[in-house]
Amino acid sequence: MLNNPQINKNGELQHLLSIEGLPVEIVRHILDTAEPFVSVAEREVKKVPLLRGKAIFNLFFEPSTRTRTTFEIAAKRLSADVINLNISASSQSKGETLLDTVDNLAAMQADMFIVRHAQSGAAHLIARHVAPHIHVVNAGDGRHAHPTQGLLDVFTIRKFKKEFTNLRVAIVGDVMHSRVARSQIHALNILGVPEVRVIAPKTLLPTGVEQLGVHVYNDMTKGLKDVDVVIMLRLQNERMRGALLPSAQEYFKYYGLTAEKLAYAKPDAIVMHPGPMNRGVEIDSTVADGAQSVILPQVTYGIAVRMAVMSILVGAGS
Amino acid sequence: MLNNPQINKNGELQHLLSIEGLPVEIVRHILDTAEPFVSVAEREVKKVPLLRGKAIFNLFFEPSTRTRTTFEIAAKRLSADVINLNISASSQSKGETLLDTVDNLAAMQADMFIVRHAQSGAAHLIARHVAPHIHVVNAGDGRHAHPTQGLLDVFTIRKFKKEFTNLRVAIVGDVMHSRVARSQIHALNILGVPEVRVIAPKTLLPTGVEQLGVHVYNDMTKGLKDVDVVIMLRLQNERMRGALLPSAQEYFKYYGLTAEKLAYAKPDAIVMHPGPMNRGVEIDSTVADGAQSVILPQVTYGIAVRMAVMSILVGAGS
Amino acid sequence: MLNNPQINKNGELQHLLSIEGLPVEIVRHILDTAEPFVSVAEREVKKVPLLRGKAIFNLFFEPSTRTRTTFEIAAKRLSADVINLNISASSQSKGETLLDTVDNLAAMQADMFIVRHAQSGAAHLIARHVAPHIHVVNAGDGRHAHPTQGLLDVFTIRKFKKEFTNLRVAIVGDVMHSRVARSQIHALNILGVPEVRVIAPKTLLPTGVEQLGVHVYNDMTKGLKDVDVVIMLRLQNERMRGALLPSAQEYFKYYGLTAEKLAYAKPDAIVMHPGPMNRGVEIDSTVADGAQSVILPQVTYGIAVRMAVMSILVGAGS
Repeated sequence: MLNNPQINKNGELQHLLSIEGLPVEIVRHILDTAEPFVSVAEREVKKVPLLRGKAIFNLFFEPSTRTRTTFEIAAKRLSADVINLNISASSQSKGETLLDTVDNLAAMQADMFIVRHAQSGAAHLIARHVAPHIHVVNAGDGRHAHPTQGLLDVFTIRKFKKEFTNLRVAIVGDVMHSRVARSQIHALNILGVPEVRVIAPKTLLPTGVEQLGVHVYNDMTKGLKDVDVVIMLRLQNERMRGALLPSAQEYFKYYGLTAEKLAYAKPDAIVMHPGPMNRGVEIDSTVADGAQSVILPQVTYGIAVRMAVMSILVGAGS
Repeated sequence: MLNNPQINKNGELQHLLSIEGLPVEIVRHILDTAEPFVSVAEREVKKVPLLRGKAIFNLFFEPSTRTRTTFEIAAKRLSADVINLNISASSQSKGETLLDTVDNLAAMQADMFIVRHAQSGAAHLIARHVAPHIHVVNAGDGRHAHPTQGLLDVFTIRKFKKEFTNLRVAIVGDVMHSRVARSQIHALNILGVPEVRVIAPKTLLPTGVEQLGVHVYNDMTKGLKDVDVVIMLRLQNERMRGALLPSAQEYFKYYGLTAEKLAYAKPDAIVMHPGPMNRGVEIDSTVADGAQSVILPQVTYGIAVRMAVMSILVGAGS
Repeated sequence: MLNNPQINKNGELQHLLSIEGLPVEIVRHILDTAEPFVSVAEREVKKVPLLRGKAIFNLFFEPSTRTRTTFEIAAKRLSADVINLNISASSQSKGETLLDTVDNLAAMQADMFIVRHAQSGAAHLIARHVAPHIHVVNAGDGRHAHPTQGLLDVFTIRKFKKEFTNLRVAIVGDVMHSRVARSQIHALNILGVPEVRVIAPKTLLPTGVEQLGVHVYNDMTKGLKDVDVVIMLRLQNERMRGALLPSAQEYFKYYGLTAEKLAYAKPDAIVMHPGPMNRGVEIDSTVADGAQSVILPQVTYGIAVRMAVMSILVGAGS
């Protein structure tokens, strides 16, 4: 935790930038805090006044309707005021630097920035720069991290599997380009999952991936053998146009999750996907819509987890 | 009403997809419910708490500032949380299917989807797919229907003419490409208007239009003769560039509503237009801004009618 | 004040279109009203209910994330409902006129329009057109005026310098193309600043600029001599590509504000900039981030000043 900008001097979560380096108590605290927020969404009036009058800026330098929407809903359920900013088109094109943009928004008395940026480290840069009463949440930076996705994934696993310490989890697909996979691996390791596997063709695995504490498989039938959780990754269309993969059909044949391949996992294994799915590329529709799929509960829990992160951050002394 | 997905088993409005097939009692109930909402807009604080904490998604797959804005205002006056999504640019371009997008938003605990889509039937498709506690409003699908526009039009007519059963109504212009005209015709028929006319050049009339229960005219002076209500349709610029029409000037000469042509209608006839207007193409400014025009009241009543639809849907058991 | 559409018959502010022609009492009233709003932003719950249920339309015909955001925040802190409309893409492209767009939004029971438009006079046109209960704020029209920027600038000066009647203020840069400069000059004159200077190359000065009541300098060291306030203007990139300027480097050499040039001003001079800054073009980073810079307080005060303008307008009888 040396020089960890996420944790303040009282050991509280000051920013959420990356799951790497988070103490297990904080990860558990986020998951526990999210629990009651699941039921807020089921009430007649889906609002709690925890963040009333707070100004939360969705600062998206990269377009993302889905992630932006989940943060917007989470913030509105907490009664915050939400300002959506898609920055590609405006100030940045006028030549203003990232930190000048941030300084200006901070001067508008922002309480929190939700940041998505194509450059790894953008959220860290902003977190190190802002005044101590402002909180930063990384909503995806380059290939680096997408911590709320990792957290909602482990929240979902806990909901369906109760314990982490007896699980085998397989993450399947384009690990190399995936900030989601990185955040998942860190979260699973921190929570004590004894066996995390990654399954992918060699061209989609980063060199030295084993150092993240995972077991590497290039074959689905071996990699899925007796796992409790299967996490599919989205295959970016760009990868298929590049030299990394022969074709979508070929990829589906070897790495697409079908009922046949899923049969190698435990009978009660759950299937997860961060979305949006490419049906027929990384996952077959019978599996995506099947009884073992928890893909839509992931979305629902994602709101609760983001509400938890936001309310914990605002509650942190600074 | 066989297999009508708009009506639930208790006979309540579950979705608003099309005016076609709606029981007259439901149409009247919407109009009656809208009445007090007109005065909400005239209060000092223009809000009622009917939909507090409800999450309403404006799901626009086709751009429309005007319609999206009226739904946004209606929802905010009901104290709902509104999430605007312009989908063309994001998930759809990432290859996600329409129903996956809808499933994901539903998993964020949406209460209502307001859907605009270039494909006829898109709102129906979504309504048949979602869970029973979610309501769908069609805000325009292809050339098929735009039911809230049809409802606000008959609400406006009732405001100015009191009764429907003694009226002659003329709809003028590009009936062929107009979802608005279709919804208007169904609404007028359901409410018992004895004579609905359409006036248009043959190239802008769908084949078999008489089967909708209308009288067809190709000549304005004959078609407008003694009518109580004149509804002008917007002429899309695209039509004029195509082979359907010689030119905007020519169109205006024969079908543009001028004071001279309007004189053929009853002296107290009202003039309506769904907007946005092409002044000097389908309507002359002296008429658009004249004493018989109720074009701006249509907009005002449109908010009240949309508030009525939303509050009725949310109140429906499911 | 002859025919001044900003002031109603009771002498109250009806619209804010331009600082030119505003009585000094109204300017002072805006500044005084803004004072307590500065502290609203420092509270736990940054909201006051002054504009609850009011519908405020951000009507931006020209893109501007920054200005739009400050108005949106100001309106939300006053508890208003805010509708953002970027008009370039929608109705205007469908051929609707500006005033038809405004009429339609007014018919949705708008209470206030915040208008930005590339054409000088657009906000005036709208103000003269709308019904008396609707208020218009000019958020920048062509090269003409940007009154809330001028007001926040004088608010900032008053915060740091207390009095206006003993000040020397220099405005540096592209005065010719700057609506900001025009609004600043009028505000400073109205408040009785005895000496307003403009410093610029001749190619960036409008002919007859002296008639605005300013002293003209082409040399920074002379123009900055003993001033209390230095206001830097943004240099639009377009200017540098045109024939008006040799290059950004050349411009910086002669007119960029460096610590060296700033030393000609009084030791306690403050440095202002409306943003977004071009670091290394019109201002050096050491100055922008230095002890004399009040550029970020300008942003903070901008929210309070806009809250003041909005609440004064809504409070005006009509």
